[in-house]
Amino acid sequence: MKITGTFLDEISHDIPHQNWGRKEWDKDFAHMKAIGIDTVILIRSGYRRFITYPSDYLMNKFGCYTPPVDWVELFLQLADKYGFSFYFGLYDSGIYWDTGDMSHEIDANRYVIDEVWEKYGYYKSFKGWYLSMEISRGTKGAVEAFRTLGMQCKEKGTNLPTLISPWIDGKKAVLAASSQLKKEEVVSLTEHEKEWDEIFDGVKGAVDAVAFQDGHIDYHELESFFTVNKQLADKYGMECWTNAESFDRDMPIKFLPIKFEKLKLKLEAAAKAGYDKAITFEFSHFMSPQSAYLQAGHLFNRYKEYLNQLTTLK
Amino acid sequence: MKITGTFLDEISHDIPHQNWGRKEWDKDFAHMKAIGIDTVILIRSGYRRFITYPSDYLMNKFGCYTPPVDWVELFLQLADKYGFSFYFGLYDSGIYWDTGDMSHEIDANRYVIDEVWEKYGYYKSFKGWYLSMEISRGTKGAVEAFRTLGMQCKEKGTNLPTLISPWIDGKKAVLAASSQLKKEEVVSLTEHEKEWDEIFDGVKGAVDAVAFQDGHIDYHELESFFTVNKQLADKYGMECWTNAESFDRDMPIKFLPIKFEKLKLKLEAAAKAGYDKAITFEFSHFMSPQSAYLQAGHLFNRYKEYLNQLTTLK
Amino acid sequence: MKITGTFLDEISHDIPHQNWGRKEWDKDFAHMKAIGIDTVILIRSGYRRFITYPSDYLMNKFGCYTPPVDWVELFLQLADKYGFSFYFGLYDSGIYWDTGDMSHEIDANRYVIDEVWEKYGYYKSFKGWYLSMEISRGTKGAVEAFRTLGMQCKEKGTNLPTLISPWIDGKKAVLAASSQLKKEEVVSLTEHEKEWDEIFDGVKGAVDAVAFQDGHIDYHELESFFTVNKQLADKYGMECWTNAESFDRDMPIKFLPIKFEKLKLKLEAAAKAGYDKAITFEFSHFMSPQSAYLQAGHLFNRYKEYLNQLTTLK
Repeated sequence: MKITGTFLDEISHDIPHQNWGRKEWDKDFAHMKAIGIDTVILIRSGYRRFITYPSDYLMNKFGCYTPPVDWVELFLQLADKYGFSFYFGLYDSGIYWDTGDMSHEIDANRYVIDEVWEKYGYYKSFKGWYLSMEISRGTKGAVEAFRTLGMQCKEKGTNLPTLISPWIDGKKAVLAASSQLKKEEVVSLTEHEKEWDEIFDGVKGAVDAVAFQDGHIDYHELESFFTVNKQLADKYGMECWTNAESFDRDMPIKFLPIKFEKLKLKLEAAAKAGYDKAITFEFSHFMSPQSAYLQAGHLFNRYKEYLNQLTTLK
Repeated sequence: MKITGTFLDEISHDIPHQNWGRKEWDKDFAHMKAIGIDTVILIRSGYRRFITYPSDYLMNKFGCYTPPVDWVELFLQLADKYGFSFYFGLYDSGIYWDTGDMSHEIDANRYVIDEVWEKYGYYKSFKGWYLSMEISRGTKGAVEAFRTLGMQCKEKGTNLPTLISPWIDGKKAVLAASSQLKKEEVVSLTEHEKEWDEIFDGVKGAVDAVAFQDGHIDYHELESFFTVNKQLADKYGMECWTNAESFDRDMPIKFLPIKFEKLKLKLEAAAKAGYDKAITFEFSHFMSPQSAYLQAGHLFNRYKEYLNQLTTLK
Repeated sequence: MKITGTFLDEISHDIPHQNWGRKEWDKDFAHMKAIGIDTVILIRSGYRRFITYPSDYLMNKFGCYTPPVDWVELFLQLADKYGFSFYFGLYDSGIYWDTGDMSHEIDANRYVIDEVWEKYGYYKSFKGWYLSMEISRGTKGAVEAFRTLGMQCKEKGTNLPTLISPWIDGKKAVLAASSQLKKEEVVSLTEHEKEWDEIFDGVKGAVDAVAFQDGHIDYHELESFFTVNKQLADKYGMECWTNAESFDRDMPIKFLPIKFEKLKLKLEAAAKAGYDKAITFEFSHFMSPQSAYLQAGHLFNRYKEYLNQLTTLK
């Protein structure tokens, strides 16, 4: 299972920013291409007051700050240059997390989708939409929000595909700002299947691909959960991707690059389950030779050796 | 608003030490000078048993360890070499934090000030005193301590200026060793104004400049708090500096370099409020091209580009 | 007190992995040799499902994952190449930590010892066994486990020496995954002496060397605890080593390299107490010039300068 996509972590939410400029990003896209990445997904176009492009709407409506760089433009230019597909991640006002009311996300993104398509829709690499709300079972209002947002996206332009990346409510599903690494109450495989069957039924037609985050369950649980995920995706006509997290959830430092062996276990479980595509969160902090975390460069080398082995085996 | 000063984080209190020797520090002063820094402030000359210079008094009185390097001498030599002003940060016995009794800090520093002035007062770059107790409203005994310590400093030598750097009791005012990023009970702007009016009234004449830490409130709150701070400083004849924190308080890793956009927002708010000077905590970990945190080198580059833009705009 | 040994942190338990391959490890052994290291100790051969060598027994019995690299073989080859002594660290099933029942560790390691000695016992550098359970007073069943495991090791081959590395139940004995740095209830020197006298009495003959971790007590407490440790080791005919932790327990980031001054205080306390040998946890993350933590390279330089000073003083 080869990683062919990565998130772009703008706006950085819980991973400290690397402060790269255009030169570093250009070089990073080259590093991505070198290992076969062809898809980049903007994790979110904004979070609360920080935004990735100078949106008149968001600055007026939510008091967002004028960004020093138009990241959307920069990433689209680089995606064009390197022949990548770019997925645009929607805006997250933060209001849902504070109030439990999802309607603000729907309203805000109606405008954002219009604005973005008008400003950037002509880029050749603009190939999809990422519904950026990270949900799990029990995220109130998520089904309706995803259906509505997904349809809003698909009505724009040329019916581009939509992607979601939910998390499995496993034992490592704890807050990044918590000092805990694990929790006691976790979802069973049966509950997971029942609940996501309902969720997928609710969003079918509005969501084209689902990339479950792979880091919240233990490594030996991957196979059974992945099998269920693939069956459900097949049932509702969605592509089943894996979001192979390249950071390590098992360590007190939240977060540094993952041990290669763990990434390998996760990718092999996805291959075994017949997944359609692997993307990662995310290349630039956790797998890039120019990451501020030098472990990432070594992970890049280990991963390249692994790719060579795969090729040789064939 | 250009950053023209930085703290020197010896004794490192909650930021892991970089283990630099003279060579690295010399190079770092050169990097500082390259972006216009002209002032270095020793964050504290000692904390509990760790001290920055071989103080007979502190070793005898508090059982402090003999430091492997005389950092005060080293920094003064480099400050002389690069034409910087050096502020000496007072000793913190830790007793106040354990007992709530400020008298030990006053007593200990009476001797420290004598000792230090005698040993190092002749350095050309010895240009001020930093009253190193980090306080906020409700720090019991702080007003009297600052008045007493400030006057003790000013009576030495040639009446050198004194500096304090308190924190605003905002939502990010949580302990570094806590896993939390925010707290619920925060000071209102009105309370802040009322309480600091009293504090400034109490320390006037003993404190020449106040550099509020800028990281404990949200970015959109900066303008109103900064305006109040400047008005209060003006009222009591103090210079109003900003302590622009170059580390990121919003991330689970405590602490790595700040995202440039955030630093820019804070500097611009200080400029808007008419602040007199910007210093940072601190250059060597969070903005230096040779920092162990490679994000810092990129922040250095982004900041330099910003300085160039400012110059071009003029 | 010169550091002449280091742990090898495979399996990484709470320190993020560096993802090194053979090339980096070879270079690291050269760096170790350059400062006088002659002993490497595998911290554990496995923890729960992750293992360092392809153990048929552990894969069948505990469902362990096939490791992508045979680390035991790699480390033994490098130890042979550089003329080091290699200590093999036993397997930790994790069951004790979950259930308080130590019998699984004893049973599992009976097989591991057989398997490992058969596979790797012929390596010239295979010179000892490390009983990898990190215990302190009150670790239920530890005395019997250490006695049994130690004897099992010593019965293999040529009666190779056995090593343990317990921790002192001091104020910094808190969980890595906790956000706390200190705790309130700590062991007194008298309790420490009484309890370890009993533990040593129970394991005598089965354990040849004890290397107390030096990071759980305050620096000014080192001398008295170290003196007691040495007296007890002498009484029971064990060698007394110090496990000089080269990471900093006093910082919110868990963990980065230690400030050199602190390491120096700890090594000097061990020298003063007449300790037999100093090892560190561990060179490759916290003292190596090629560590992902660049502070480690500076610590390496400071430590080398210190070694030169020691030589000059003689």
